[in-house]
Amino acid sequence: MRFIVADWGTSRFRAYRVEGETILDEISSDEGVSALQTGQHRDVFLRHCGEWLAAEPRLPVLLVGMVGSREGWAMTPYVPCPAGPAEIARGLVSVDLGQGRTGWIVPGLVDEPNGIDVDVMRGEETLALGSGIRDGLVCSPGTHPKWIAMRDGRVAHFCTYMTGEMYALLCDHSMIGRPAADPEDQTGFDLGLDASERNRGPSDDKRVGLLHLLFAARAAVVAGRMSPNLLRPYLSGLLTGDELNGALSQFGHPTSVTILADPPRAALYERALARRGVETLTRSPREALLAGLARLLREGSIPPA
Amino acid sequence: MRFIVADWGTSRFRAYRVEGETILDEISSDEGVSALQTGQHRDVFLRHCGEWLAAEPRLPVLLVGMVGSREGWAMTPYVPCPAGPAEIARGLVSVDLGQGRTGWIVPGLVDEPNGIDVDVMRGEETLALGSGIRDGLVCSPGTHPKWIAMRDGRVAHFCTYMTGEMYALLCDHSMIGRPAADPEDQTGFDLGLDASERNRGPSDDKRVGLLHLLFAARAAVVAGRMSPNLLRPYLSGLLTGDELNGALSQFGHPTSVTILADPPRAALYERALARRGVETLTRSPREALLAGLARLLREGSIPPA
Repeated sequence: MRFIVADWGTSRFRAYRVEGETILDEISSDEGVSALQTGQHRDVFLRHCGEWLAAEPRLPVLLVGMVGSREGWAMTPYVPCPAGPAEIARGLVSVDLGQGRTGWIVPGLVDEPNGIDVDVMRGEETLALGSGIRDGLVCSPGTHPKWIAMRDGRVAHFCTYMTGEMYALLCDHSMIGRPAADPEDQTGFDLGLDASERNRGPSDDKRVGLLHLLFAARAAVVAGRMSPNLLRPYLSGLLTGDELNGALSQFGHPTSVTILADPPRAALYERALARRGVETLTRSPREALLAGLARLLREGSIPPA
Repeated sequence: MRFIVADWGTSRFRAYRVEGETILDEISSDEGVSALQTGQHRDVFLRHCGEWLAAEPRLPVLLVGMVGSREGWAMTPYVPCPAGPAEIARGLVSVDLGQGRTGWIVPGLVDEPNGIDVDVMRGEETLALGSGIRDGLVCSPGTHPKWIAMRDGRVAHFCTYMTGEMYALLCDHSMIGRPAADPEDQTGFDLGLDASERNRGPSDDKRVGLLHLLFAARAAVVAGRMSPNLLRPYLSGLLTGDELNGALSQFGHPTSVTILADPPRAALYERALARRGVETLTRSPREALLAGLARLLREGSIPPA
C-alpha cells in the first residue's frame, strides 16, 4: 500500500510519502491552515510535494485535518457518527492538484448522540481508525483532546474537551496564570490532579466547580501558600483531572484506554489514569494516522488518482 | 458618619465624599491599579481628592480593593476568616497622604476552610459587611464572582469563581468564541443554563465536564446546529450555570441568596437562581460598599485622620 498524505492542521503542515507502514519521505512546515488565505493551499502543497507527484504518477493523495474546514482548502462536510472506513471514504471531497491529478480530503465526523449535544472532529477520525482498537476507548490528547468510543472498528461516539487550549489561555492571557514562575516544579501536576478530585464523585457536596478550583490556584500563590513554580504544572494537572472527571463519567468508567500520544504527553495521561484505576496502552499518533489511512484505502473505495 | 473613600480596583479608580448614606461628591477615572506603577498612587489620589482633604481636615480616609495588593499602593496583608468589622479594622494599613493626613487601606480576606482550599478577596469583604445580611449567603458577581457566607454579621467563609474572566477569555482569545456573531441573541443565555444542567446532579453519569460543554458550544455553531448570534450569551449562561452548580453545592443548597449587583447583571443571576428554586434579594453594590465602610468606622476602631 503506497500513498501520499498531507496531515494539515491548524498550525502545521506535514506530508509523508508512505509505503506500507514505512515513511519514505517527509516534509513539514508552519504553513498550517490558520496561516493561509483562500487559494493558497494548492501552491503550498505543490511546492512541498510536487516532486513526489511527478515521481509517483499513480499514487493516491489524501489530505487530513483542518484542511477540510471552512478555513481550509475545500469545505468538506462532516460525516455523522457512527462511521467506519466505508462511510468516511464516501465523504471524501476532491481538490484539483493540476496535471490531471486529484487529491482527496478526508472528512471529519460530527456526533449528535442525543439530539442535544453536538461534537466535531477533523483528523482524529483517521487516528482512531488506525488505533488498532476494534472495541474500546481511545484518547487523543492535544489542544482539544478527543475521547473516542470504537465499536466493530468504527467510530461509535466521541467527546471533545478543550483542555490544551484552556491551559494556554490561562497561562498566556489570564490573571490565573500570571503569578507563575520558572523553573516549573513538575510535582505541581500531581497536586493539580489532587485538586480535581474535589470536583467529582458521587456525593453532590464534594463538587466545588472547576471555575472555583482555577481561581483557588491563583489564590494559593498570591496568599503565599503555593510556590509560583508549581502553578503551571498544577493548572495542567487540574485541567487534565477535570477532563478525566468528565470523560470517565461520560464513557461509563472504562477499565482501559488507548492513548494516542508521544512519550512526554502520554506519560501525563498514563499517570492521571492510573490514579483512577484505568489501565493504559499507548500508541504513536503518527503510526495510528498511517494505519488509519491504509484502512481507508483498503476498506473504503477511494477513486483512482 | 462622614468619610472619604477610594474604591480602587484593578481597572477603575472611584472616590466618594460621603455623609451617612449620601454621596456628596464623586469622581472616577480609568487609573486602576493595573495602570499604575509603584509610587504613582499618592499623586493620583491627591489629584482627584486633594480638594476634599483640604475642605474636610478631620474626615477619615479609607481605601478599598486591589489598592492593597502587591501591585497596589501598599501591600496590605489578608485577614483570615472568619472576620467581622473588628478583625478587619485591626488589619488596616496606613499610607501617608502628606500634610499630616493618613489614609487607611482596608485589608482583604483569606479563607482556608479545610487546610487545602485557599481563597482570597479584596473589596468584597466591605460589600459583604454592608450587605444587610447577618446570617445568610451573599453573591457579588463580576470578573471573579464571590459567594460569601455571613454568620453573626461577619464573613464566615467564601468561595470565588472565575466566571467573568473566563467569559472574556473565551470571547477575546479562544477558538471557542471565534464563530460568535452580532447582534447577540439573548435567548442563548437560557440555552447555556440548560447545558450547564448536564454538569450537575446527584447521578455520576450525568456530568460531562465543563471543558466538554465549552467545546460543544463551538461545535454546535461550526456544525450549523446553533446560530452564531446565540454563542456569546450561550457561553455566559453556561459559565453562570456552572458557577451555580459549584456554589449551590458548596453552600449546602441554600433557599435564598442576596445579590450585590446593578440591574442588568443582577437580572441574569436572578433568572439563573430562580430556575434552581433559589429566592433572591438584590442590593446595589455601591450602597453595600458605603454601608460596609460605615460599619467599619462604627464597629471597628479606626485611628483618627
